[in-house]
Amino acid sequence: MPPISILVFDIFGTVVDWHGSIVREVQAAYPQVDADAFALAWREGYQPAMQRVRSGERGWTRLDELHRGILDEILPRFGLGHLDEAERAHLNRVWHRLNPWPDSVAGLARLKTRFTICSLSNGNIGLLTNMAKRGGLPWDCVLSAEVFHAYKPDPRVYLGAARLFDVSPAEVMMVAAHQDDLAAARDCGLATAYIERPMEFGAAHLKDVSPDPANTHHARDLIDLADRLGC
Amino acid sequence: MPPISILVFDIFGTVVDWHGSIVREVQAAYPQVDADAFALAWREGYQPAMQRVRSGERGWTRLDELHRGILDEILPRFGLGHLDEAERAHLNRVWHRLNPWPDSVAGLARLKTRFTICSLSNGNIGLLTNMAKRGGLPWDCVLSAEVFHAYKPDPRVYLGAARLFDVSPAEVMMVAAHQDDLAAARDCGLATAYIERPMEFGAAHLKDVSPDPANTHHARDLIDLADRLGC
Repeated sequence: MPPISILVFDIFGTVVDWHGSIVREVQAAYPQVDADAFALAWREGYQPAMQRVRSGERGWTRLDELHRGILDEILPRFGLGHLDEAERAHLNRVWHRLNPWPDSVAGLARLKTRFTICSLSNGNIGLLTNMAKRGGLPWDCVLSAEVFHAYKPDPRVYLGAARLFDVSPAEVMMVAAHQDDLAAARDCGLATAYIERPMEFGAAHLKDVSPDPANTHHARDLIDLADRLGC
Repeated sequence: MPPISILVFDIFGTVVDWHGSIVREVQAAYPQVDADAFALAWREGYQPAMQRVRSGERGWTRLDELHRGILDEILPRFGLGHLDEAERAHLNRVWHRLNPWPDSVAGLARLKTRFTICSLSNGNIGLLTNMAKRGGLPWDCVLSAEVFHAYKPDPRVYLGAARLFDVSPAEVMMVAAHQDDLAAARDCGLATAYIERPMEFGAAHLKDVSPDPANTHHARDLIDLADRLGC
């Protein structure tokens, strides 16, 4: 087995806290809204919207646009159908302003000393870059579905990341808080590390974070992963 | 005029010293070779190789492969036709190991405090990422011709960079040591900053670094550019 040289990271839920960040912004701007339900409804539209792109029903469309379509759909259900274009555009960019989990910046900084660390997210390049700059995420390279014009779990994303660096899939490790993302990466020959994020959907909706023995590593958070990888 | 928020940088010659870096490696590994002539011959094949891709004569091919094709062509002329596959592959990766100019890391760190800073190079993503990690270039995002499957000065590269960030071309400034790169960026509506790199082709082949009044800025180096932009 060649040694792992590249770590690629899922972002939403794994490195940043999308639920908590959206709840905080929505509570502050629209106190009358059930912010927890709003965040969950927005995220619920995520897979179906990407599925329309994956299936070919819709041509390549970046995530900012998919997020905006879902937002426009759910706003009336939360009594926010009156928001104007500028307010909608600003709210949609909350996905660029998601906060890292408390361990993310320190964990990535340690992992970066031994590995090339890249995002590998369905978020678009501009979104990921703005998020990283604001939150201090020290990527060596911002990789995105947008580079490959394919959304995870399409194999082109995982295999494409290895190909960009001219390494075999086994030299790349996918790091994610989602077993389905890791299973797809594993099917492509990547190593995998699961990160426990029990609070991904908020404290009121604790997530099952049981280990899957098929993963190469199972870590509490990114600092724990750095410990396990000897960084 | 909207304020500039994104700086995109040409790399070879502008941020890193390709000539000096190649000369040093070739002198150390193959002392019998005229390293200055070797570096110039390798770089001379660069535009014609990309032109075959630009013209459509050849499908999308990343720069690592173009560099390798030129290398295989010139090796016999320099008495190195006997190099085996591993030696050729290693030598070809010298483009991943180019050293920053002495002002580059400090200048970029200052520019990064006020702007989003991205590479925008014909080098491929893996090359640019390896180079940045080795040399400490603090990019917010590694952008490459490889993202757009088009080589500068194709307008898709300059316009594509603005589109990724959802800004108008006037909010992006191209920074380069080559007037033709800047002219093409300007034609797309980008602001431009010329960087003097009189030693790009080595001390024996000083380059004309006269100002062109069409550029938005003209700077001695990246620290001088940071001064001019108030960073």
